[in-house]
Parts: sequence; structure tokens; C-alpha cells
Amino acid sequence: MSGEVHKGLAGVLVDETRICQINKDENLLYYYGYEIKDLTAKATYEEVSYLLAHGELPTTDQLKGYKETLSQGRYLSDDLTSVLEKIPADANPMDVLRTGCSIMGSLEPESKENNLVVIGSKLANRLCSMLMYWHHFSDSGKRIETETGEETVAGHFLHLLHGEKPDETFRRALDVSLIIYAEHDFNSSTYAARIAASTLSDIYSCMTSAIGTLRGPLHGGANAKVMTTLEKFEDPGQAEASVIDMIANKVRLTGFGQRAYATADPRNAINKKWAKDLSDAAGDTALYDIAERVESVMWREKKMFANLDYYNAVIYKMCGLPTHIFPTLFLIARTCGLVAHVTEQRAYNRLIHPSSQFIGTDPRAFPALDDRE
Amino acid sequence: MSGEVHKGLAGVLVDETRICQINKDENLLYYYGYEIKDLTAKATYEEVSYLLAHGELPTTDQLKGYKETLSQGRYLSDDLTSVLEKIPADANPMDVLRTGCSIMGSLEPESKENNLVVIGSKLANRLCSMLMYWHHFSDSGKRIETETGEETVAGHFLHLLHGEKPDETFRRALDVSLIIYAEHDFNSSTYAARIAASTLSDIYSCMTSAIGTLRGPLHGGANAKVMTTLEKFEDPGQAEASVIDMIANKVRLTGFGQRAYATADPRNAINKKWAKDLSDAAGDTALYDIAERVESVMWREKKMFANLDYYNAVIYKMCGLPTHIFPTLFLIARTCGLVAHVTEQRAYNRLIHPSSQFIGTDPRAFPALDDRE
Repeated sequence: MSGEVHKGLAGVLVDETRICQINKDENLLYYYGYEIKDLTAKATYEEVSYLLAHGELPTTDQLKGYKETLSQGRYLSDDLTSVLEKIPADANPMDVLRTGCSIMGSLEPESKENNLVVIGSKLANRLCSMLMYWHHFSDSGKRIETETGEETVAGHFLHLLHGEKPDETFRRALDVSLIIYAEHDFNSSTYAARIAASTLSDIYSCMTSAIGTLRGPLHGGANAKVMTTLEKFEDPGQAEASVIDMIANKVRLTGFGQRAYATADPRNAINKKWAKDLSDAAGDTALYDIAERVESVMWREKKMFANLDYYNAVIYKMCGLPTHIFPTLFLIARTCGLVAHVTEQRAYNRLIHPSSQFIGTDPRAFPALDDRE
Repeated sequence: MSGEVHKGLAGVLVDETRICQINKDENLLYYYGYEIKDLTAKATYEEVSYLLAHGELPTTDQLKGYKETLSQGRYLSDDLTSVLEKIPADANPMDVLRTGCSIMGSLEPESKENNLVVIGSKLANRLCSMLMYWHHFSDSGKRIETETGEETVAGHFLHLLHGEKPDETFRRALDVSLIIYAEHDFNSSTYAARIAASTLSDIYSCMTSAIGTLRGPLHGGANAKVMTTLEKFEDPGQAEASVIDMIANKVRLTGFGQRAYATADPRNAINKKWAKDLSDAAGDTALYDIAERVESVMWREKKMFANLDYYNAVIYKMCGLPTHIFPTLFLIARTCGLVAHVTEQRAYNRLIHPSSQFIGTDPRAFPALDDRE
């Protein structure tokens, strides 16, 4: 086969979709027609999760029922916790969730009743419970109770992390962050989930593929990398000098650029405001001030704009999250976007099976073992 | 974004490759330049695994060292077996391997020494050990010893399944089947592994994605589906009548057709001979006779040729494999092909990130919760 090779699939339209719309020229993002600015100002993550799973916003009654299903995901069975206890303390937290999600496929397999929407909607809370159970157990041997009674996924996560009911400002900041990470069109991990779905594999396989793909430093690992960069800077002035130096040495700064948008990531202004609010609430703007200076230098010097990962790193830090678990929040948020894509793939399925251009060795004779050098 | 939509990526060249060449018009298949006919006649699976991992066939010394590494994969740690023991007896065997592979990513993570070739080459044996440990434990509570001392992956698998050293004819038949399933260009599961690799994720994530994708009935599940169809037939005559009836009713028969080849799958003649040899050796050609009749009817009536899954089902059955584990053999064989693709993706990496054509709802105002119907 010969023809143009689309390495990386850049610009290749691989399917039609009704889920996510991006207006590149005007830097706008919509989930099922609702602008991200409206969703982050007026909706909760649970409403957005429902929207992505069903295509429409819930009524009061639908939301009540949906939140009940979501909260059932907080429970961890003894079989599940005993598996989590086998995972070493130095494991990559994304691997903990990949394994936890995978074994759930055997413990609560997909069926007509336990369908992909039910499984997927429980998963955000369940991944929070799994992660925090493993986090505390591997850190101190403590077996935490994962039923928090919190109203929201964001509250559940912070409650499990810190062992107490979270402050409302910080909880809502995390809630908004979950909305922001919930969906973003055909990215690498979403397409991985759709490929698994295209063979008619189960929802856990789709999710597991997405987790393994999101895990990479070029994808879901970016928010943690932003943090490890920012925390090396001492103050805004030193940060500015360092960044100018990095630019001169062609060192790439994570957290900048997003080819889906022309001049700004629409999620950045939202994140930036929350990062500022949390820093003010905590009475500690040192990290925010550094981040803001680096952002302005990158725009002034390179015309590069901050993307969704950038101020999310500041938000997570202000919420007291250890840096190495940052990528797991991206995944937890994205579970509902993945439900949307797997649902859509199944509804209009065609097996995803590409072709390649062979550029290797011509046919050759098979040499006997003794004749090889 | 607008333009042609390549749903399913049919015929889209997504990358250049040096691994696998398919000559569609002449129905030929090569791994790194060696024809499948030669490889299945003259090589062992271990040599083919080395070839796929390194791009060249091994010398005597290289093969000796490689086989030592391979056999180290047979060991299962206590942590790993305790996880396998938590997986219910009615689980899908592919899920057992997906979870087992995933937790290995935390127990023996990828590192400079424990690199992707080492991990990947151990994986064929390790997956055999995992599967058979779980199979016997969940079936009868027996905790089997997974060090068999066998020379080959095929021997190891059959030894663990039946609890004794296998007959050489059956062992070599499985060996050849492993060679046949070892690699086949950019199919769905291989591309899934390459997408995970493209984010610079670890080898276990790539493998886990491939397992979840291969699991689907439209992909790795096909060999089991061939068996469940064939075993419904009573004899060749009744099979012929049934198949003609199925054709009239437009019922699709699994195991036929492969768009990569024009008029025949080059792997089928090889499989067919082995299926016949094993049936003769077992003194039971009933299943083979039915399979051969169905094959000839499908060609006569529909000009459809049998693909790799077709007689593999007969081979597996004659080797005493339970039907529900058939797809796991496809995966076990494919581990070395996946190592080849992940290695190639990393060497010439570009993040795989496609685009989509939006066809959904126009931007709409966000309604308050009370205003929704």
C-alpha cells in the first residue's frame, strides 16, 4: 500500500462526533453545545458527568438519581482492597488505577443491568476511593473508610485525602477543575478507548486502555511536570531570568501551547482565577505569583499561551495534593468523557484498523541456525 | 475542521514500518523479510520472538541467552498469585491477563535494566503461568507450580494445562500457532499499543491497552467464536446444509475473510495441515472433517477464504484447550509483535492525536436546574 503517511494522525478526521465542539479561531470549547465558561460557572461536575453520559443536562429528579448511582462507586470490596494492598508504595499512582479498574472488570463485569453508563458513572468516585485507600495504606498502613457521605466527587476526594470535610472554596475549585478535565474531543487516550470499543470489548477494557495512554508524560503527566518546573523557581524575578534562559537553550516548558486553539486555551482564564482565589484564601500567593510571571514571559517572548494543565497545577498544590498524584485527577475527571465516547463509538461502530507503509527489508531466505553470524 | 472522514481508518497509512510486510496480491506475509511459510517450517517461536524484538534472527549463543530470559518469566511472585486468586472463576480469561499484566507494571516496573525487550520477552511465559495458575486455582483450588522446566513457551503452556510433559507433535503444533499469531501489521490492538507508546507511557500500559483491545469479539475473540460455531455441527453433511442456510439468511460466519489478502490467507494452509496432522495423531478427524467441508462450502458459495483463526480453533481443540481460553493464546503469541511495535514507535515517535468532524448541537444557553424539562 502506498500514499500519504499520516504519522500521528495530525489533522486526520477519524470520525464524526456529537460530544465536544472546539472553535479554534475563537478559542471556544463546548460539551454537547454548552460553553465551558457556562459549565464551570453554573454547573457541578455531577451535572456535567450526566450531560456527557446522556447528551442532555439532568432535571432535578434525574440529577438526584444520578448522584445516588455515582456515590455507590465509593465502596471498595474486600477483594479489591486486598489487591490494592499488594501494590508497592513507590508505584505510579496511574498504575494503581489501571490495575484497580482492570480487576473491577472481573469483580463487577459489564452486563445488561450493570451497563457502561452505570459502571462509568460510578468510576470517578471509585477511582478516588481506590487511589486514596492505596495512598494511605502504602504510606502508613492505615486502612481508611471510603464512605465519606460527601455530596460530590470533589468533596469525596478531598475528604479522603485530608481525612476531614473540605473547605467549600477548595472543594468548588476542585469541582471546576474536574469539569475542565472532563472532556476534550479525540485526544490520544480517548481515541485509545474508542479503539478498544471498536472491537466490541467491554467498558473496563476501554477505560484501562485510556488510563495506560493518559499515563504518558506527553499526555496526562503534563500537570505534574508543570508543578515540578514551577517549584524549582524561587520568586518571580528569578523565574523570569530562568525562563528566558530556558527559551534561549530551547528547553520546552510543559503547560504551554494547545494546537486546538488559536491564541488562548479557554480553560486557562477559568483556572487562573481559581488559582488566584485559592492562593488568596490560603494567604500564600508565592506559587501563583511565580506562575503568573512565567505565563507573561512565555507570551511576551514566544507568543505561547498557557493550557489547561498550567494553573491546574497551582490549584492542585493549593488543595494539598502531592504532585505525583496530579495526573490521576485528570483521569478521574475524564471518566465521564470516556463514557460519552465509548457510547458514541458503540452506537456508530466500525472496527478501527489502520494500514501502514512498509519501508523495511526485502524478502530474504531463511538461514539455518548454524549459518547465522 | 472539515474534510474527508476516515471512520475506522480503513486504508489510511498511519505510519511507516519495518516489521511486517504483506503482499496482498500474492497472499504473502513476512516478518522482517522472512516469509511466514519459512518461519513456520524452520523456526521455533523463540527464534521468531527474538527476530521481532531485535529485527534479526539470533545466533546460537544469542538464542541460548534469550531463552534463558524468556524462561525467567515463568515465575509468579506471592503478591501476583494472591491477586490472581481474587479473580472469580467466571471471569473472562483475557481480563485475568489484563489485570495480571497491569499489576506487573507496579511489581516489576520498567527501568533502564528491566527494559521493554526484557519485560516483553518474559511476558509470553508469564502470561501462560498467570492464566494457568488462575485456571487451576479458580477451578479446583489447586495452587500449581509454574516452573515446568520446559524448553519452549508452547511446551510450558501445555505442561501447565495438562500437568504433564506434552506430546511433541501437539507441542510443535502449538509452537507453529504461536508463530502464526506473533505479528500482523497495524491491526486494532497493535495500534492501541502504539498509541499508548506515543504518549511515552510504559510497556505495561502498552500491553494492557493491547489486551483490552484484543479482547473484543471482532478481534481476538474470533478463534473462540469459530469453535462455538463448528461444534454445533454434527457431521459434514449437516454442516453443509446449515452453512447454506446461514448464507441464505445472511448470517456471518466467523473465521472467513481477511482484507489484507486477495484470495487466500497464507497462514491458513499451514494451520490446515497441522489441524489434519493433530486429528490423525489423535485418531479423531470428526471436527477436522466438518471444518474442511464448511471451508469448501464457503469458498464454493461465497468465494470467501478461511483466515488464521479458522483452523487454529481446530488445533487448539485437539490440544485440549477449553474454548473460552482460545483468545488468550492469540495474545500470548502476539506479545513479541507488540514489543516490536512499541520499540519502533518509541524510536520514531510522534504523539498519536487525531481530529474529528463535529456534527452535533449548535451552541446553546445554559438553563438553570429548575428550568429543565
